[in-house]
Amino acid sequence: MIDVAGDRMSQTKMNHLLGLAGVSREVISEILDSAEAFLEVLERPIPRVPSLRGITVANLFYEPSTRTRISFELAEKRLSADLVNFTTSGSSVQKGETLLDTARNIEAMKVDVVVIRHWAQGAPHFLADRIDAKVINAGDGSHEHPTQGLLDMLTLRHQTGKLEGLKVLILGDIAHSRVARSNIFGLKTMGAEVTVCGPATLMPREIETLGVNVTHNVDEGLAWCDVVNVLRLQRERQREGLIPSLRDYQRAFGLTRARLERAGHSIVVMHPGPMNRGVEIDSDVADGPWSVILRQVTFGVAVRMAVLYLISGGERVIE
Amino acid sequence: MIDVAGDRMSQTKMNHLLGLAGVSREVISEILDSAEAFLEVLERPIPRVPSLRGITVANLFYEPSTRTRISFELAEKRLSADLVNFTTSGSSVQKGETLLDTARNIEAMKVDVVVIRHWAQGAPHFLADRIDAKVINAGDGSHEHPTQGLLDMLTLRHQTGKLEGLKVLILGDIAHSRVARSNIFGLKTMGAEVTVCGPATLMPREIETLGVNVTHNVDEGLAWCDVVNVLRLQRERQREGLIPSLRDYQRAFGLTRARLERAGHSIVVMHPGPMNRGVEIDSDVADGPWSVILRQVTFGVAVRMAVLYLISGGERVIE
Amino acid sequence: MIDVAGDRMSQTKMNHLLGLAGVSREVISEILDSAEAFLEVLERPIPRVPSLRGITVANLFYEPSTRTRISFELAEKRLSADLVNFTTSGSSVQKGETLLDTARNIEAMKVDVVVIRHWAQGAPHFLADRIDAKVINAGDGSHEHPTQGLLDMLTLRHQTGKLEGLKVLILGDIAHSRVARSNIFGLKTMGAEVTVCGPATLMPREIETLGVNVTHNVDEGLAWCDVVNVLRLQRERQREGLIPSLRDYQRAFGLTRARLERAGHSIVVMHPGPMNRGVEIDSDVADGPWSVILRQVTFGVAVRMAVLYLISGGERVIE
Repeated sequence: MIDVAGDRMSQTKMNHLLGLAGVSREVISEILDSAEAFLEVLERPIPRVPSLRGITVANLFYEPSTRTRISFELAEKRLSADLVNFTTSGSSVQKGETLLDTARNIEAMKVDVVVIRHWAQGAPHFLADRIDAKVINAGDGSHEHPTQGLLDMLTLRHQTGKLEGLKVLILGDIAHSRVARSNIFGLKTMGAEVTVCGPATLMPREIETLGVNVTHNVDEGLAWCDVVNVLRLQRERQREGLIPSLRDYQRAFGLTRARLERAGHSIVVMHPGPMNRGVEIDSDVADGPWSVILRQVTFGVAVRMAVLYLISGGERVIE
Repeated sequence: MIDVAGDRMSQTKMNHLLGLAGVSREVISEILDSAEAFLEVLERPIPRVPSLRGITVANLFYEPSTRTRISFELAEKRLSADLVNFTTSGSSVQKGETLLDTARNIEAMKVDVVVIRHWAQGAPHFLADRIDAKVINAGDGSHEHPTQGLLDMLTLRHQTGKLEGLKVLILGDIAHSRVARSNIFGLKTMGAEVTVCGPATLMPREIETLGVNVTHNVDEGLAWCDVVNVLRLQRERQREGLIPSLRDYQRAFGLTRARLERAGHSIVVMHPGPMNRGVEIDSDVADGPWSVILRQVTFGVAVRMAVLYLISGGERVIE
Repeated sequence: MIDVAGDRMSQTKMNHLLGLAGVSREVISEILDSAEAFLEVLERPIPRVPSLRGITVANLFYEPSTRTRISFELAEKRLSADLVNFTTSGSSVQKGETLLDTARNIEAMKVDVVVIRHWAQGAPHFLADRIDAKVINAGDGSHEHPTQGLLDMLTLRHQTGKLEGLKVLILGDIAHSRVARSNIFGLKTMGAEVTVCGPATLMPREIETLGVNVTHNVDEGLAWCDVVNVLRLQRERQREGLIPSLRDYQRAFGLTRARLERAGHSIVVMHPGPMNRGVEIDSDVADGPWSVILRQVTFGVAVRMAVLYLISGGERVIE
């Protein structure tokens, strides 16, 4: 029996986790604290707690995913939930059923929590308004990827001891990145300072309204930051004419060892994966002492356990 | 420990469930009664019973499916069975292995029950004759889909209190529908009256030999019936020239609110899903007070639990 | 509680199972002995032991597979391991992530054992050198398929009572067969005699250096052997011009009843599956009294349980 379920646990009433925009500092802190407790569970010889026994989770993935899907699956198994998986290949989607009908049907089979990744922005919100099951956004279009934002914050808090006042540089394709958006919302709420850096063609208009600084100069950004979160560059950006070539992008914005050393101070390097080694990040950096990239992955399971746990009521644990 | 396993349970010796043709009223009643007991299990805080502990089920899906596959998976998990999944993508089918070799191999791994969906009519019967494992037909070509027929009957019995004398209209593409056939066989056995309705091009010859009435006029059918079961219209029927256009089909045979209201009495609306909203059924109807469509989905899990339970011997439950 | 975990168990320290080349007679014997114990577990009413409770296994399949994947999955479930599946379709592979990054990420989620099938020879060794998780090769290119070699040996030992001195004919496409290679390595180590037989175009150069005899005459081989292991003929060999036609191949090298009877003594027939009936093996033979093909499948689960058990330390069982 895990003892993470203190009194504070039950104070938060989470119905869904759709994004980090508008989520309070208290809720984020509670999730991170709970995740720390689950990190410790993961270190046990038998890393499993009965917290979600009797809870059924459906993982609906309308977009390819390895690490997020497996991370959620492991989180669910380590919490003793029952789970069913649905991916677009080989499904009713091919037969033209609407997302809502699929979700309602799955819900009618007594599913308690729906984890959804969808190529369309807002799909999780659409469902949350229309079904009784709890909804967790596992990434929707270019909108949000809240569990990624949370795991990034957990990693940083663990690594640096604080989020308040931390200087975080988000580097890359800001315009198309749900990871960037969830990080910005979460980090700003927790009192960190955020600068975004990337080519003008990959920078959303009026991004400053989110309370971030903007630079187009990587070296300037690195000189300023404590942490750099390197975003994956989707190769389709080249086809779309948004970047001249991968080589050019690498020269201007790729994170190299030389650049990190030029910054002259210690910087934590993060990447949400999967990495394009040699494009947005060099292997020297990804595998070097700066990197906490694999730690992010480990922390991802703990964060997802915490979210699943809190969203499911967080009471069963104390039964 | 579930108490559904009364004395009656063990009286039925089910080896396979291949279709509803020829299945006696006693066996159907026993499955439905057992399913009622499992419905109650599904309402428990921890909806799981140990009835199939030690039983291994293989789900072989040679055709895309979401709801049927997930419904069977959940039924198996809620009964504590072990399960393995096999879908055509990424499998030996690509390497040209025969269905029988695949099934024999899976059986050789100590699989007790095979749930099979196959595009070829008779595939489950073919297997049942050749392997020792129990076989459950999860839909074979245009032939039968017995668990759908059973869940439809369970829904109706629950909703209306009886099957005997109930007037059921099956509306749509009768010729290609395994759902229609399983419903007809089951409902006739249970003493219901069945009328089928659809365009002449989608009506099998000599369908009357199954003991059903035929009409090509929806309004006539609705005026008569207590229940309408709306079949999915496969879009390929248009390519095949069997219907002029989806719009024409909708106008002549689509179930609309206006049509239901014109019937002048209360009618229960069912649909096996996935729905083509705006084609064979309007959203007004699908989501309206007539509809028991989502209840069908819930009852589907209970019916599949009952079938799995009875087919596996139904004794372990009292251990 | 299973009692296979005698003192001998813990004497073998297996970190990985990458191939049978270089694996000692002691280790092979230990795996086979352990598998015999698990065979007995598989006969129990509830064929499950808690040996791998708390152990997480990731099945990474970069190549289509039915029987090997399901066999590993069942072995893992019967040992009470947690498992996650990854297949190439719908994965980060499409996004261009390297094998190593995928494996490191999965490992970072606290995965203890990685079962990998890969089209590239050496992929499992590459991983084993770079991650901490234990690695089991489930087939790599044309290189090795050690659990197939082991299950073939277990079947033979069970069937004939010995491996020492046994005369085994491996028939077919030797050049492209990982099954042939793993069989050769294992059987030679255990003291069996091996002859390979196939068309010259499908015979690797210098195969004799592995300590086997070579013949291009099936009847000669059959006259000599106690056992014939028939390899699957990949249809692409024809496209590649390595065989004139399937018909010609069948005539020259297909295992027929006539050929077996002509040999004039009892011969055990094996095939790793999936079979091309009527090409490399006739149905008469595959389903006849000579065949132990389905027994191989059953023994495959036991062998994989043994390997998973020994690789995971083999201690938990006595907890």
